[in-house]
Amino acid sequence: MSIFLPKSIRTLIEEFAKLPGIGPKSAQRLAMYLLHSPDSKIKELGESVFNLKQNVVFCENCWNIGESNPCAFCSDEQRDKSVICVVEEVLDVVAIEKTREFSGLYHVLHGALSPVDGIGPDQLKLGSLFKRIEEGDQEVREIIIATNPSLEGEATALYIQKQLLNSSINITRIARGLPVGGDVEYADEVTLSRAISGRSAL
Amino acid sequence: MSIFLPKSIRTLIEEFAKLPGIGPKSAQRLAMYLLHSPDSKIKELGESVFNLKQNVVFCENCWNIGESNPCAFCSDEQRDKSVICVVEEVLDVVAIEKTREFSGLYHVLHGALSPVDGIGPDQLKLGSLFKRIEEGDQEVREIIIATNPSLEGEATALYIQKQLLNSSINITRIARGLPVGGDVEYADEVTLSRAISGRSAL
Repeated sequence: MSIFLPKSIRTLIEEFAKLPGIGPKSAQRLAMYLLHSPDSKIKELGESVFNLKQNVVFCENCWNIGESNPCAFCSDEQRDKSVICVVEEVLDVVAIEKTREFSGLYHVLHGALSPVDGIGPDQLKLGSLFKRIEEGDQEVREIIIATNPSLEGEATALYIQKQLLNSSINITRIARGLPVGGDVEYADEVTLSRAISGRSAL
Repeated sequence: MSIFLPKSIRTLIEEFAKLPGIGPKSAQRLAMYLLHSPDSKIKELGESVFNLKQNVVFCENCWNIGESNPCAFCSDEQRDKSVICVVEEVLDVVAIEKTREFSGLYHVLHGALSPVDGIGPDQLKLGSLFKRIEEGDQEVREIIIATNPSLEGEATALYIQKQLLNSSINITRIARGLPVGGDVEYADEVTLSRAISGRSAL
């Protein structure tokens, strides 16, 4: 941070630079952009930061965020209560909803198992998932594990599978393969071998 | 913007997405990061946005931003008042100060000539530059034009040069050539031809 700028600008640059994916140069540019913006725009941004957590609650059933507890999904009678899609983050719910392919319920873990980062099962919303399945007054028939196809996501999927080994529930995992529009030539080996082993009949 | 997120989060995502260089996906990630941050961090960011323009004034001599008018540079008796370095933006001052190679005064134009965008001489702080030179109780010996080596920056440099043609002031332009660590093989033609024509004796 430069000492050649006024204190208030330096402070904002420092705050911006703390955000993920924003380096010191981008932070400088953002602060300068705001400095040249009308006061009303600055106020709008500041207020929306302050109000971020207003009326935002976690659903204590699926741990998605929403404006009510239980959330809009859990309290929606139209949704298929026999299928639970397990995801790592809230934004994964958004992404899946956009496909309009899924009409069941969700369960947001808020992370994935990562011993290196000190994230074990207790740090995730796993206990409440198993409780939901066990206590379920609604009968859960299928658990779709939609964690990321990363080391951590796969480990989490494996962990859930192991824990539910003795139950009669159908445990499925979202397909891993080539992204649509992708190129066999440029696909990495792991993705390609997954795509081959996960092939389906035409 | 997703309709599957609470209103306050959507609002912040929209606000972030308005900032330059931040797309809708980055905006989502930033909002989610803040949502998982402690309230104190959110407050810090919000306050620094609100306070951005606090104690920030433009120096009416050089149009740099600072905490006083005239700014710290213009009121510093140690700086060489016979050289004025003309730059496009405030951050250019910061960049040049970091080199510790320049001890003169600055003049911030707040842009560059760009007829396409409707930016003519009147939209820039050019008039006050010429006034500074003419009225200068301190005698200005050199004007270093450090506008960007872009079409707009070069046009601005040319304009300033023309306006000061009849004055006895030394007008110089920062060197254009290969960046340090660059590669002759990969340099574009214009840069390379500039580097050749601007060669200096070893």
